[in-house]
Amino acid sequence: MFSKQQQKYVQSLQIKKYRQEHATFLVEGTKSVLELMDSDFQVELLLCTPKFFEDNEKKLKKISVEQISQTELEKISTLQSNDAAVAVVKMKANESLLADSKEFVLVLDDIRDPGNLGTILRIADWYGFKKVICSNTTVDFYNPKVISASMGSFTRIKTFYTDLQTYFEQISVQKPAIIGTFLNHENLHQFSFPEAGYIVLGNESNGIGDIVEKFVSHKVTIPRFGHAESLNVGIATAIVLDNLMRSK
Amino acid sequence: MFSKQQQKYVQSLQIKKYRQEHATFLVEGTKSVLELMDSDFQVELLLCTPKFFEDNEKKLKKISVEQISQTELEKISTLQSNDAAVAVVKMKANESLLADSKEFVLVLDDIRDPGNLGTILRIADWYGFKKVICSNTTVDFYNPKVISASMGSFTRIKTFYTDLQTYFEQISVQKPAIIGTFLNHENLHQFSFPEAGYIVLGNESNGIGDIVEKFVSHKVTIPRFGHAESLNVGIATAIVLDNLMRSK
Repeated sequence: MFSKQQQKYVQSLQIKKYRQEHATFLVEGTKSVLELMDSDFQVELLLCTPKFFEDNEKKLKKISVEQISQTELEKISTLQSNDAAVAVVKMKANESLLADSKEFVLVLDDIRDPGNLGTILRIADWYGFKKVICSNTTVDFYNPKVISASMGSFTRIKTFYTDLQTYFEQISVQKPAIIGTFLNHENLHQFSFPEAGYIVLGNESNGIGDIVEKFVSHKVTIPRFGHAESLNVGIATAIVLDNLMRSK
Repeated sequence: MFSKQQQKYVQSLQIKKYRQEHATFLVEGTKSVLELMDSDFQVELLLCTPKFFEDNEKKLKKISVEQISQTELEKISTLQSNDAAVAVVKMKANESLLADSKEFVLVLDDIRDPGNLGTILRIADWYGFKKVICSNTTVDFYNPKVISASMGSFTRIKTFYTDLQTYFEQISVQKPAIIGTFLNHENLHQFSFPEAGYIVLGNESNGIGDIVEKFVSHKVTIPRFGHAESLNVGIATAIVLDNLMRSK
């Protein structure tokens, strides 16, 4: 039986405060939940329709499952429609991440929009990135909108939330390449990427902040051929990663 | 005086049927309205706050302006908040567009999401594209969400809505290069772009449709280095246009 109390608990996970209190978060809808089943995330409880259960029974063997109606499901889901499943999942520890000797890592300085963060995770995953460092001011990775917008990529990308000044100060002894996008600097199309390092993307309105800018060793600019004033940060991420990977 | 009848008229323009009936559409918010003032679109009526009027009086000389309160403005605006202006603007005629001898033109086959179309217009504008051909099934260019998401780029991009089969049949005598994105074809990073032609992007779920695929002369694939299943169509557009422009 899916109790009122359980319903209240699941709904509370839409809010960051309660996610942090319980160290759990929500994964919703067919695609995300199926990708979740193939990942190393621990599922506390899966709420799904009898149809979803029947279609995916083999994958759900070791999981605590509660079958509920679509009407009940939609009451606890943040999605506009959900005829499949909602999973309550345990958060992972916020452990420090570093770029390996031949690896590039993404750094997000104050990304506020959950849709943008989800899209960035999806792009990072497409281009084979495994790690994303987020400023403490960046929107919560476990926000349901981030999880949904990542289209399953949240299962393959590790994140580390930290104070970026402290983080960059700590890694600066190794003199890593830190690449950031700015206006009026080196043309990305002509830029020679180093072998490894950090790629920094900045806030939707203000770009990379002054504190983080000081640590950037390579300033690059996405060349513009027309008149739009700017590009969305998800679009900028995709263009930078595509240029990086084609140079390899 | 801003009458009830005017209010009803402006609100009705949120719906395609009424936009088509009146051949007018809405432009909302500071950035979009200011870009509108620098364009060749004809403004039927501008509704704005006294503050917006004061700040931009010089630009508004030849326009019929009605000053209203922010509360009144937000009643007629589709934006979550709007402390600036809403313009009622005359649509342009749906006139046929062709790629010039050294020009690339974007073709959209069944793009359904207004946010995606707006983003694509912004990217097209960034990369210097002037013309976008849209299938009749593509979301309405004049949808307020398209206009907003284009961040002013709607003023610089011409669109032509048409039946793509008929369109491609008509231009096929000139044997233009028609480039489309598909899975498992030529790697975009190795592709040599021709001098001019058409770049086709397809529907969010199904990609380029079978009818349009028959006309595609060059099938390209955005290379994937990781595990995400797909990329959003706006992201795909940006990557293709960036690869095109860096090859020039």
